[in-house]
Amino acid sequence: MSSPAASSVLRVALLGGGTVGAAVARRLLQHADRYADQLGRRPELTGVAVRDTTRARDGIPPALLTTDAAALVGDPATDVVVEVMGGLEPAGSLVETALRRGAQVVTANKQLVARRGEELHAIAREHGAGLHYEAAVMAAVPVLAVVRESMAGDEITALRGIVNGSTNYVLDLVAREGVPFADAVRQAGELGYLEADPTEDLEGVDAAAKVAILARTAWGTSVPLDAVETQGISGLTDADFAAAAGRGEVLKLVAEARRGGDGRVHARVAPTALPATDPLAQARGGTNVVEIDAVLAGTVRLVGAGAGGDETASAVLGDVVRAARPR
Amino acid sequence: MSSPAASSVLRVALLGGGTVGAAVARRLLQHADRYADQLGRRPELTGVAVRDTTRARDGIPPALLTTDAAALVGDPATDVVVEVMGGLEPAGSLVETALRRGAQVVTANKQLVARRGEELHAIAREHGAGLHYEAAVMAAVPVLAVVRESMAGDEITALRGIVNGSTNYVLDLVAREGVPFADAVRQAGELGYLEADPTEDLEGVDAAAKVAILARTAWGTSVPLDAVETQGISGLTDADFAAAAGRGEVLKLVAEARRGGDGRVHARVAPTALPATDPLAQARGGTNVVEIDAVLAGTVRLVGAGAGGDETASAVLGDVVRAARPR
Repeated sequence: MSSPAASSVLRVALLGGGTVGAAVARRLLQHADRYADQLGRRPELTGVAVRDTTRARDGIPPALLTTDAAALVGDPATDVVVEVMGGLEPAGSLVETALRRGAQVVTANKQLVARRGEELHAIAREHGAGLHYEAAVMAAVPVLAVVRESMAGDEITALRGIVNGSTNYVLDLVAREGVPFADAVRQAGELGYLEADPTEDLEGVDAAAKVAILARTAWGTSVPLDAVETQGISGLTDADFAAAAGRGEVLKLVAEARRGGDGRVHARVAPTALPATDPLAQARGGTNVVEIDAVLAGTVRLVGAGAGGDETASAVLGDVVRAARPR
Repeated sequence: MSSPAASSVLRVALLGGGTVGAAVARRLLQHADRYADQLGRRPELTGVAVRDTTRARDGIPPALLTTDAAALVGDPATDVVVEVMGGLEPAGSLVETALRRGAQVVTANKQLVARRGEELHAIAREHGAGLHYEAAVMAAVPVLAVVRESMAGDEITALRGIVNGSTNYVLDLVAREGVPFADAVRQAGELGYLEADPTEDLEGVDAAAKVAILARTAWGTSVPLDAVETQGISGLTDADFAAAAGRGEVLKLVAEARRGGDGRVHARVAPTALPATDPLAQARGGTNVVEIDAVLAGTVRLVGAGAGGDETASAVLGDVVRAARPR
């Protein structure tokens, strides 16, 4: 890592070979020259840790597949560890190990970052490592960088948005196509729009993790997940949709956070009836939207796809570039 | 600048005491503690260069006003020079002087950056200085940072947006309120929505400068201002608006840039009839919108106020924070 010869290569280990992992791997392999030009270091994929090495993964040479994630992470030659396996364990232990040996870690794991973000940041600081997770919130929409860096000279007062694409897909289907709520949920599941455990989406747990990360990024204060008032969409009925439509309103799962006059942060996720003219009400399908209110800037709005393999890979690769730049 | 004692202060010189300058000064003076906490260095306003020191400026102590911009810029103790005076000269010479002595420069001057950006970047590199201009495009909407940093791992293919709030105000007034075009232009002028020289807005010169900066930031290639195909709104007639409305379309001044298969960048500004459902068509009043298309990310959209003293100050102060952080 420190010898001049080695520094011309950027060794990247990938944990997870699902849709996001495969998209990251393909891009790194097929566009290595481009990244080399940009970074002055040529990315080299050292391995992709998966559960099943016999399954073919589009664009990943089988020789790179391994079940030994710990070996990849522990390899002192690995510069950047990209964690896109999801779940709290073993992802958490692997990320921690990488940070403890001073590596740059890029993760898309919102539950891990929401639950252990501060602890992991402290470990990263202690060991001169780096922790990057733009992909954990709103996929390719770079809301964390905007909040953390671009608006650092201003004072953010509130954040509100639609940060879970799966539930928005369901709500949009009911509101626009008149599909009964239960059918819309089933349809979203069949299309793969819901997480493996659909309660993460439907009960607002995914949105709560994202708003907790957003709020901590905006205000630098700890926002534990259980301090986010969380209500999902599973309790909604067709009558609720009909009533909202009758008032010219649209039901959306809104995530919001606000810093009160006392400096305390209040965060919540709840189904909310919005006037049809509200920019959040206009989010179609899997679209995510966030509005950032600041004292000087007024309202800045960011919109884009909130999920998807390529979209999440875009943010992961942005963080890989960030991690590879000299600090 | 290099002694440990001095490094605990961040000396900021301000060139220009208009709406943006006054907003920056007020914020730096009133929130010095906040910036000190954030940066580990307390900002100190060393002076505000203006043409007329006898005019009162809201929130700026008269003792800070000076007509001697060159002295402020040349002072080796000044860490950050903020240029918000506008115009090519003397702004250009002052920025160049500051860069040549290795200072950090923050500017909101789109014409200067569009015309001399590459030359000034080269001077900055040569002298270990810094050049920051997020405020030059879309005020507080941090489109340059998003394009340059957040999407650096992706591949941007096209940009399109409404980047001039004044003409959008005029066009919106005609389209929504039915105000005759000539009256709408007059009204915008009376409300101070047009630049001192209104042809900058009306002839698309302002939008062309912004799209040139955007394109260079996205693709790293030189985009001279005269290579931007530019058509303003001054040639529009009430009949054009009526015809567009009859087709269910909305006339907007659209700025766009695209990288062709040959790697060449094509940029243009032109009045364009958009379907009413296009997100650009929905921009009200002085709102700015930009859509960034990238291979992995799809389309990411940023929306916010495109002008205004506080809004521009938000971006300037973000750059001051960026400039003050250790590199």
